[in-house]
Amino acid sequence: MKTLFRLSFLLFVGLMAMTAAKPTRVVFFGDSITQAGIKPGGYIDRLKTLLPTDQFELIGAGIGGNKIYDLFLRMDDDVLAQKPDVVVVWVGVNDVWHKASSGTGTDPDKFVKFYEAVVKKLQAANARVVLCTPAAIGEKTDMTNQQDGDLNQYSQFIRDMAKRHNLPLVDLRKAFLDYNLKNNPENKEKGILTTDRVHLNDAGNQFVAEQMQKVLSTVK
Amino acid sequence: MKTLFRLSFLLFVGLMAMTAAKPTRVVFFGDSITQAGIKPGGYIDRLKTLLPTDQFELIGAGIGGNKIYDLFLRMDDDVLAQKPDVVVVWVGVNDVWHKASSGTGTDPDKFVKFYEAVVKKLQAANARVVLCTPAAIGEKTDMTNQQDGDLNQYSQFIRDMAKRHNLPLVDLRKAFLDYNLKNNPENKEKGILTTDRVHLNDAGNQFVAEQMQKVLSTVK
Amino acid sequence: MKTLFRLSFLLFVGLMAMTAAKPTRVVFFGDSITQAGIKPGGYIDRLKTLLPTDQFELIGAGIGGNKIYDLFLRMDDDVLAQKPDVVVVWVGVNDVWHKASSGTGTDPDKFVKFYEAVVKKLQAANARVVLCTPAAIGEKTDMTNQQDGDLNQYSQFIRDMAKRHNLPLVDLRKAFLDYNLKNNPENKEKGILTTDRVHLNDAGNQFVAEQMQKVLSTVK
Amino acid sequence: MKTLFRLSFLLFVGLMAMTAAKPTRVVFFGDSITQAGIKPGGYIDRLKTLLPTDQFELIGAGIGGNKIYDLFLRMDDDVLAQKPDVVVVWVGVNDVWHKASSGTGTDPDKFVKFYEAVVKKLQAANARVVLCTPAAIGEKTDMTNQQDGDLNQYSQFIRDMAKRHNLPLVDLRKAFLDYNLKNNPENKEKGILTTDRVHLNDAGNQFVAEQMQKVLSTVK
Repeated sequence: MKTLFRLSFLLFVGLMAMTAAKPTRVVFFGDSITQAGIKPGGYIDRLKTLLPTDQFELIGAGIGGNKIYDLFLRMDDDVLAQKPDVVVVWVGVNDVWHKASSGTGTDPDKFVKFYEAVVKKLQAANARVVLCTPAAIGEKTDMTNQQDGDLNQYSQFIRDMAKRHNLPLVDLRKAFLDYNLKNNPENKEKGILTTDRVHLNDAGNQFVAEQMQKVLSTVK
Repeated sequence: MKTLFRLSFLLFVGLMAMTAAKPTRVVFFGDSITQAGIKPGGYIDRLKTLLPTDQFELIGAGIGGNKIYDLFLRMDDDVLAQKPDVVVVWVGVNDVWHKASSGTGTDPDKFVKFYEAVVKKLQAANARVVLCTPAAIGEKTDMTNQQDGDLNQYSQFIRDMAKRHNLPLVDLRKAFLDYNLKNNPENKEKGILTTDRVHLNDAGNQFVAEQMQKVLSTVK
Repeated sequence: MKTLFRLSFLLFVGLMAMTAAKPTRVVFFGDSITQAGIKPGGYIDRLKTLLPTDQFELIGAGIGGNKIYDLFLRMDDDVLAQKPDVVVVWVGVNDVWHKASSGTGTDPDKFVKFYEAVVKKLQAANARVVLCTPAAIGEKTDMTNQQDGDLNQYSQFIRDMAKRHNLPLVDLRKAFLDYNLKNNPENKEKGILTTDRVHLNDAGNQFVAEQMQKVLSTVK
Repeated sequence: MKTLFRLSFLLFVGLMAMTAAKPTRVVFFGDSITQAGIKPGGYIDRLKTLLPTDQFELIGAGIGGNKIYDLFLRMDDDVLAQKPDVVVVWVGVNDVWHKASSGTGTDPDKFVKFYEAVVKKLQAANARVVLCTPAAIGEKTDMTNQQDGDLNQYSQFIRDMAKRHNLPLVDLRKAFLDYNLKNNPENKEKGILTTDRVHLNDAGNQFVAEQMQKVLSTVK
C-alpha cells in the first residue's frame, strides 16, 4: 500500500512536471515584419527575454508581401499544423500599400471578410487569437504620410473586429503614433521606429516586443 | 431459383434506372458574368437547351466582383456543399481589371497559387474540373485594349495549369479573339459579344454556351 | 483760372468714376467643383451676393477631371486671355484621387513643379494669385477617409508654396475639417458639405463662398 | 567682268562653306532611355558615327521618369532654347508604366492632348518634328507583357498623330517586336534589346541608332 502510494505520488509529480513543462505555444502570423521578427534582435527574438521561457514557446510564421488573403490560404500548413495555443495576427500594411505600388492591394470589404474567416478558423481550432493593427507606412505625425487615411481605416476595421469578437488587441497603429508624437519632433518619415517607413529598426523591434509582451502576459 | 433470378434482374434494371436518372451536376463558379449567366438568355440558361436535360443539372455560382481568391474563400459553402460532379471555373477579368480601376487586382504569382489551391480542393472532393480563360476586357482585335497584355498573361497561366493537370479547357480568350477577327472589322471595343467590353450580350451568351457545350459533352 | 480749376476737378471726378467702374476681374481656375460653381447656387454664384457687384467681376474657369498639369496646359487660353486681376487656383482632388481610381494621379514632386509653374506664369502676367487647398475626398473626421494622408500631404505642399511666395491662401482643407468636427458628430463620409464626398452640396457651396469672400475682400 | 565673275564665284564658295559649316541641330527629347542615350555606347552616341559629323549636331534632352506632360513643361528651357532644326520626340513608356507602378500614369486623352501641344509648339518654333513610338515594357513576343495592350494603344495614338500632321515616324514599337519575333525564340522578357524590359542594352542602342538614322537622313 505504501509503495502504491509512493508510486502514485511520483506519477502525480511527474504529470505536474510534464504539465508545467508544456509552455504556451504562440505563433506570430504575418508579413515581412514578422518574417524579420525571428532574427536576432527581431521583435519575436526580444520577446523571448521579456516572457518567462518556461511558459512560452514563440514561433514565427511571417512571409514577405503577405496580405490577409495570403494568411487565409496558408493557415492550415503554417499555423494550424503547429497546434498553437495562441495566434498573434499582424497584417495589413501590404493590403493598403500594394494599392499604390502595384495595383494589387485588398478592397476594404474583402479585407474584413478574409480577416473574419481567419479568426473563425483559428478559433474553431481552439487557438486564442490576438489581433494587431498595422503600425505604419511612414512615421510623420501630422497625418501626411500618403497611406495614413487608408491605414487608419483598416486599423479601425481591426479594432472593430477585436471588439465584436472580444479579442485582445495590440493597437500598434496607435502606439506608434503616440511614440512618434513624443519622439519625432522633426516629423521625419522614417528612422524613429522604422528603417524605411515600414520595417522595424532596433528601437522598433524593442517597442513592438514590449507592446506584445503586455498583451501576451494576459492571454497565457 | 427462377424467382430469385427474376428479382435480381428487376433490381439491376431499377439500379440502372436510378443511375440513369441521376444527371451530372455541373456548378459554374465565377464572377458577375456567371452571375448573369443564370438569367433567362444567360449562357447557363442557354446551355440547358444545348445539353440533354435528363443528363445535366446546371447550377450557377457566380458573384459580381469576384477574383480567384474570393472563389477560394467561398468554395466550401457555395460549391462543395452542392456536391458537384463537375465544376467549371471561369474567373480572371477582375484580377486584371481591378489593378487599374481600384488598385486591388491580383498579383500574377498569387493568381496561380490561389487557382492551384482551388483546383486541388475541388479534385480532393472528387469533382471534375473544367478551366476557362477570361474572355475579354475590350473587343478590339489589334491588341490595343488597355488590359490585353495582362489578360493574355493570365490566360496563359490558365492554359499552362490545364496542361499541367490534364484538365479540359474552354479557351474563351482565344475563341473571342478569333470570333472578333471575323466579325468585328471596324475594331470596335464592345457590341460584338459584349455590352460593355466585359459582360455578355445575347450573341456573347450564345457563343459562350456553345463553347462550353462542346467541352461539357466530353466530361459528362 | 477758376474755369481751369473746375475742369481739372471734373476730370478728376471723371477718372475716379472710371476707376470705380472697373471692377476687379477674378478668374476661378480649377476642376469639376469650380465648373459647378458657376451654376445657380454654386459657390461662385453665391460669391456674387457676398461681394460688392460693382467692385468684382467673377469668372469661372473650371473643367471636370482637371489636375494641376491640365491647368498649366490650358492657362493661356482659359485664364490669361481673360486678363484677370486675380486668379484663384483651386485644384488637387483629382491629382490624389485618380491614383486609386484610374492609376493616373500626379506624383508629389510633379504636383509642386507644375503648381509653381502656374503661379509663376500668372504672376508674370501681373495677376494676383490666391491659392486654395483641396477640401475633401470624404468627410469623416477621424482621418479614416482613404485619401486623407495624401490629401493632407498635397494640402501642405500648397500651404508651403503660399508661404514661400507670400500669397493669400484659402485653406479649405482645414476649414472643412474644422466644420465637420463641429457638425458631423456621426462621422459620416458625405452629406455635410458634399453630396458625394467631393462635390459641394448647398451648405458646401455657401461655406466655400464665405471662405473665399474673406480672402477676396483683402486682395481687391 | 572677269573680276566680277571671280568675286561672285568666291562669294558662292564662301556661302557654300558657311552653309556646309552649319550642321542640322537635332535635339532628342525624351525620358531615361534618351538620358542614357548620350553616354558612350548610347544610341545618340552611336548615331554620331552613323551620320555625317559635319552635317549633324546631336543633342540629348532626356530626363528619367518623364511623361509627355513633363516634356511640355520643360520644352522652352531644354529644347526651344537650343534653337533646334529637328526635334525627335520619344516618350510614352512612363505614361503607361506608372499607372501600375505608382498610380501616376497619363490618361489616354490627356496623352494625346499634351502630345499635340508639344508638336504644335515645336512647329511654331520652326523645328521639324520626328515622332517615335515607345519601344517596349517587356520583350515577350506573344503579347503577354503586362502593359502590351496599353503600350500598343499609345503607340497607335502616336502613329495617328504622325499621319494627321504628316510627320516622319520612327516606329520603334513595331521595329522592336519584329526584331524580337526573329531573335527572341525563347520568348524572354528582357536581354534581347533591353537590360530590364525597358532600357537599352548594347544591341538595343545600336538597333535604335540604326532606326533613327534611316529617318534622320531624310529630314536633314
